[in-house]
Amino acid sequence: MIALDAMGGDRAPNITVRGALSAARRGIVIGLFGDKDILEAELFKADPAWEKLPLSIIPCLQTIGMDEEPSRMVMRKKDSSLVRAVQAVADGQATAIVSAGNSGAALVAGTLLLGRVDGIERPALGMMLPVRQGHLFCADLGATTDCKPEYLEQFALMGHVYLKQRLGYKQPRIALLANGHEAYKGSILVKKSYELLEKRSDITFVGNLEARDIFQGKADVLVCDGFAGNIMLKTAQGTMQEMFIRIKQEIDASLWYKIIFFCGRGIFDRFKTDYNYRDQGFAPMLGLRHLLLVAHGCSSEHAITNALICADQLVKEQFLAKYNRELASYINQPMPLSQTGYSDNLRFS
Amino acid sequence: MIALDAMGGDRAPNITVRGALSAARRGIVIGLFGDKDILEAELFKADPAWEKLPLSIIPCLQTIGMDEEPSRMVMRKKDSSLVRAVQAVADGQATAIVSAGNSGAALVAGTLLLGRVDGIERPALGMMLPVRQGHLFCADLGATTDCKPEYLEQFALMGHVYLKQRLGYKQPRIALLANGHEAYKGSILVKKSYELLEKRSDITFVGNLEARDIFQGKADVLVCDGFAGNIMLKTAQGTMQEMFIRIKQEIDASLWYKIIFFCGRGIFDRFKTDYNYRDQGFAPMLGLRHLLLVAHGCSSEHAITNALICADQLVKEQFLAKYNRELASYINQPMPLSQTGYSDNLRFS
Repeated sequence: MIALDAMGGDRAPNITVRGALSAARRGIVIGLFGDKDILEAELFKADPAWEKLPLSIIPCLQTIGMDEEPSRMVMRKKDSSLVRAVQAVADGQATAIVSAGNSGAALVAGTLLLGRVDGIERPALGMMLPVRQGHLFCADLGATTDCKPEYLEQFALMGHVYLKQRLGYKQPRIALLANGHEAYKGSILVKKSYELLEKRSDITFVGNLEARDIFQGKADVLVCDGFAGNIMLKTAQGTMQEMFIRIKQEIDASLWYKIIFFCGRGIFDRFKTDYNYRDQGFAPMLGLRHLLLVAHGCSSEHAITNALICADQLVKEQFLAKYNRELASYINQPMPLSQTGYSDNLRFS
Repeated sequence: MIALDAMGGDRAPNITVRGALSAARRGIVIGLFGDKDILEAELFKADPAWEKLPLSIIPCLQTIGMDEEPSRMVMRKKDSSLVRAVQAVADGQATAIVSAGNSGAALVAGTLLLGRVDGIERPALGMMLPVRQGHLFCADLGATTDCKPEYLEQFALMGHVYLKQRLGYKQPRIALLANGHEAYKGSILVKKSYELLEKRSDITFVGNLEARDIFQGKADVLVCDGFAGNIMLKTAQGTMQEMFIRIKQEIDASLWYKIIFFCGRGIFDRFKTDYNYRDQGFAPMLGLRHLLLVAHGCSSEHAITNALICADQLVKEQFLAKYNRELASYINQPMPLSQTGYSDNLRFS
């Protein structure tokens, strides 16, 4: 069973319920965590025959709002849809969690209830950015806002192992997000992380990547702290949205353009599909012992369905066990003394 | 005379010389700092009658490259076009500097040679982002990558005074760039800056702004550290560029779309003008005692001309003297004891 935080998200439970129904019709077994009466009403409204589907409701009385302070709420609202869904996975009643709710709360609940992989200092939200060709896996996109260089080094390893396992990359090119491609650029955090990554012989570190170049295929993994990653991701989303609004304004202002656009609307189709974060945006919380997929708060029904299908597939492939095993092997590998430059270089041994 | 770092920029001196020629034709007196032979050759190539224009060459033998480490280079290359141009303003031989070169070096040279406004802890690059309606003045966009909360508080004041003086805003709405609009969101830096800004009664602080919402007119001033600001600005630029490339690819793949696009190309015209950072991107380095305009490394001839015209106008209006006077009055104003919550609240008095 995949546990769905049915009350989480800007348009929950309407969208979460509809997303779950579509996934359940494909045979995915789903547990909906949330207010029983509300969920039953939503389910009945969307599909009066929902009881024939592999869907069950696990009643919980509380909800963690998008605006609520995560750590406090996770501690207080033990009967919230999110905490109960995460707890169900920790207890072995479910195999994975999908939540489009408060992502900070998902992080806290995930860390506290599921636990981190041995040696991992902080979890990271990792996601593929839709670049023109190839792939760009970014971590962290918002889980850990204040980072130490060692965290960024681990995010690099998370990306390295992810691309190796999911896409068969042999030596993913790992870059650091910085305010310029030059080696001397970056905040103190980036500069210190640069030194750590440069020293590792088991990954391919290609230096700094400027935010302007993220779409240009210069790297396969982009490493950043959760704050910078979030700014990058959301600026890209906001800019695309703004461009479409602006183009639409121009079109709406003239009948001629309206006709032209009608004939040429296909120009935008592929683009809109590739970059539609409402339909696609979900990311695994890497570094945890169990599978937790975090979806955008503004996720569409389609995105929820996709996240549930993805979770189901990852569970069937036993992805996380393999991933965490390989990740731990990178993390816990003591580096040769000559390469670390640290007196405490054996801290992982 | 406006001092132009004629050797600075990705396409210098070709572009800088052509930009200077256009500005000089409008009567602006310009000093070109750089290699005499190279500049003379470029000038002659572009306009054999250049000697009739109010242009002079101030020969310097060194150049600070875009890839060179700023602070070291400013110290070492005393005869570089940038350092000499900044020195000319410090010495009163020129009234302002325009540079499209290494912006880190411009910051270092500006801080060392021009000096900071009393009480200002760090300079900031401040620029208007092209939002749909209204204005959004952002600072810092890359001058100070590692910030303390007190710096961000000062950047807020810089933006406040800028919008008051340049655009007549009475109470500009000031927001902090964060990974979510909720008050609890943000890195430690953002949270602490939030507390400082919330306490000030002399500005209008409206809370956190998510990067996705920067174009939506929710604030007039956006405050961030130079690292986050740079990531935001360059992600927006990269995303726009990527969208145009993608749309062009779709169009190029089909004759039908080519015809359609030809008829409807005007749809993109205004957009391309508004968001063309190659032609528009230059920003004053705020917090310094003299006027230093930093332009994009990839500036076009047009952008250099615009920056020179802008510098000339600001000098004629005596903008910086007025701006710095008002800024200092905000900075040096001791806050009432009840509002600060600090024991060292009289440090500015």
